[in-house]
Amino acid sequence: MFSFESFSVFILMPPSKISREDVLKYDTFLFDADGVLWTGDIPISGAIDFVATLFRAGKSVFIVSNNSTKTLDQYVEKVARMGFEGLFKKNIITPAIVLSAYLRDRAEYAGQPVYLLGMENLKRTLESVAGVRCIGVGPDHFMDHSSSDFIFNLDLSLMPKAVICSYDAHLSYPKIMKAANFLKRNGVEFFATNEDFTFPGPNPDLVIPGAGCTSAAVRAVSGRTPIVFGKPHKPIANFLRNHEHIDANKTIMFGDRLDTDIQFANDNGFTSCLMLTGVSSLEDVENAEKRGETNRVPKHVFSFLSRLTFSTTNLAWKDEGGAAEKGGEPVSKGQQQGWISKLLTGQQMNPSEWQKQSHSSLLSTSENIYEFATHNYHPGEKERYLDAFVLQLPSIELVGSWTVSYGKTKDQAIHLWRHTKGYKDVDRFVFFFSEESAVS
Amino acid sequence: MFSFESFSVFILMPPSKISREDVLKYDTFLFDADGVLWTGDIPISGAIDFVATLFRAGKSVFIVSNNSTKTLDQYVEKVARMGFEGLFKKNIITPAIVLSAYLRDRAEYAGQPVYLLGMENLKRTLESVAGVRCIGVGPDHFMDHSSSDFIFNLDLSLMPKAVICSYDAHLSYPKIMKAANFLKRNGVEFFATNEDFTFPGPNPDLVIPGAGCTSAAVRAVSGRTPIVFGKPHKPIANFLRNHEHIDANKTIMFGDRLDTDIQFANDNGFTSCLMLTGVSSLEDVENAEKRGETNRVPKHVFSFLSRLTFSTTNLAWKDEGGAAEKGGEPVSKGQQQGWISKLLTGQQMNPSEWQKQSHSSLLSTSENIYEFATHNYHPGEKERYLDAFVLQLPSIELVGSWTVSYGKTKDQAIHLWRHTKGYKDVDRFVFFFSEESAVS
Repeated sequence: MFSFESFSVFILMPPSKISREDVLKYDTFLFDADGVLWTGDIPISGAIDFVATLFRAGKSVFIVSNNSTKTLDQYVEKVARMGFEGLFKKNIITPAIVLSAYLRDRAEYAGQPVYLLGMENLKRTLESVAGVRCIGVGPDHFMDHSSSDFIFNLDLSLMPKAVICSYDAHLSYPKIMKAANFLKRNGVEFFATNEDFTFPGPNPDLVIPGAGCTSAAVRAVSGRTPIVFGKPHKPIANFLRNHEHIDANKTIMFGDRLDTDIQFANDNGFTSCLMLTGVSSLEDVENAEKRGETNRVPKHVFSFLSRLTFSTTNLAWKDEGGAAEKGGEPVSKGQQQGWISKLLTGQQMNPSEWQKQSHSSLLSTSENIYEFATHNYHPGEKERYLDAFVLQLPSIELVGSWTVSYGKTKDQAIHLWRHTKGYKDVDRFVFFFSEESAVS
Repeated sequence: MFSFESFSVFILMPPSKISREDVLKYDTFLFDADGVLWTGDIPISGAIDFVATLFRAGKSVFIVSNNSTKTLDQYVEKVARMGFEGLFKKNIITPAIVLSAYLRDRAEYAGQPVYLLGMENLKRTLESVAGVRCIGVGPDHFMDHSSSDFIFNLDLSLMPKAVICSYDAHLSYPKIMKAANFLKRNGVEFFATNEDFTFPGPNPDLVIPGAGCTSAAVRAVSGRTPIVFGKPHKPIANFLRNHEHIDANKTIMFGDRLDTDIQFANDNGFTSCLMLTGVSSLEDVENAEKRGETNRVPKHVFSFLSRLTFSTTNLAWKDEGGAAEKGGEPVSKGQQQGWISKLLTGQQMNPSEWQKQSHSSLLSTSENIYEFATHNYHPGEKERYLDAFVLQLPSIELVGSWTVSYGKTKDQAIHLWRHTKGYKDVDRFVFFFSEESAVS
């Protein structure tokens, strides 16, 4: 008897940091929105300048967002309000737009009803662009359910040509039931704008169900699989090739999620570039590599930030305190004073030397790293800035912040950070966000 | 360079027909309900007699149903109304009962709130048996959704110990959102009564979302996996072992679904027995074998039916008409008369001879098979009988039916069937439902 076993060898190819100079060699720039260009309503530091640089250099720029809850007019208004220039309707690509164009190009859909599990804004886009008639939008609930008579009284008399799933705050049992029964009929097509299970929200502790919630329920009950228009699927890329004539070899995609943005780029031949300002971390990249999910591994990592825009002071210190500093206990005012004293007399570290050490040796110490950072922000935006800031750097513990009001054009925040995931994390942070010259 | 490929060889082991004599060697008898003992509110032919036989022989009998929408009192009443005798509360095992017992046995749940995506009857069972307090039952919808303020106004102030998913006709976006947010908290457990995506209904053309719809949505948004109490999972089997002290080696399970009943039996060491009166067919068994889903392949196939209870006349004929009889066109009255004439003068077939032929040779002919059958049913139940009857034998086309009223105790229906899936199907049908002596 012989027995064979197969061994899988994953060759880890970590994404390389790409320079601004190399980035600017591309012709077409695709950006995910939330977590890349902004967080909620706050621009990511450096994003506005970077986009302006691209337009000055004559590049093609598109926001490629899975969010289909806004009309294009609303999207353009939001982008302009945040301070981005040069981004108009034609620069914004969403599944709603691509799905609408797809239906518009199929003559048999003209004036026909589609059953939409989605919100009013999506209905407006579909009706104005695709010329279909959306039915089913809005509340639709059983107000009474004392008997099983409802199964005989469901109105299925209309005959939609398709069922479309998206984010629907009025998602309900009768809607799911109707969708599944329509999908049982021959020839009724099944589309989903996107399948993100949740939205990024202003409060990371609050789970907000997204379009993937709707289609998960309808998939389960109908047993059917929709054509999905959002990332990581192909329709948006096909749309960009056919309508905007982009060259995949000269296109770079910036995203914060491996399972949507990065996979979308890799599957469609674009250069993938992870931004560390949103959902996915370098640890997620390592885990994707270990699982063999090569199409979710970014080719590069990039940051809009430079020393000048990000941090006017960037100190990193080894703390010699030892045991007293371990753990993540709440910080009292007395403790803060102690840490600051230590910081000012501690041993200074040069980030470039950390990079020469292996991760494992860094992880084997019990020391803590503290860091000062200074950020500039728009006057009057302090609270929103602080909220957004915490979202951007989830693996760093904020020991304390001090804010300074300069006047009309900018205010400043000074932060004392503690790296809470060990040296491995510090290493990453310094590697991507610091310049050697920033260490005084 | 060497390359290795692996080849998978599936050895097909079709389920064997088990005799009534061999069935009666077991001690404990587990029955799925809908599709096995009844269809809707109509008993499957032979089921009442078979269950009565088991009780007379001193066997342990349990109905093991995934349906948690009834209280046990309602279940017992339904079973008695259909004519089953000897089946009381202790004989009926549902996920609602097993989940309630599980929570009752954990002292920390006494008097505590659980968030229930389910109906009033399940709430009653959980509160009376487990002593928990169910919150969230009933309608809970956004009536307005003009802004995104709702994400700041969601009431998450209560602190349930668990989220429980089941069939919920009031399933809604806010309920899914609340469930997902509760599940984000440390220590909040996640349970599902069962995960059947749909209910078997009185109208096979109507899709009715089941408990699996609820948990599909909550799974998707929360990213968590529930402990599922229904078939094919283990809790019901553990309950039977611990509370009813059944011996798996002496237990036989009758079910109509490979993915719930048969897998449940196989995974828990019970003898699995497929009934062909419900969802799954022998073709499904073949497909499961081909996919290597060995735990969904039944050991045996069984029928309650015998010549006396099922069919007073069971004729099978080869039709010599040839081309004119092909296809599935609607049958006109004139055509019916022609078929009957042919039938009466055609060539009689002996089913036992068909069994000796291979499937492929039977499939290679273009001939049609017609068959007469006579059924007895309760007076006044004609319409319901006919509805249920069509459900039981989905692969046979009913050419015509004639009903005869005898009087107080029984009426009779005479059917002319056409086998619409070729000889392969006839072979199966005859193999499982006919006795040689039934052919005149």
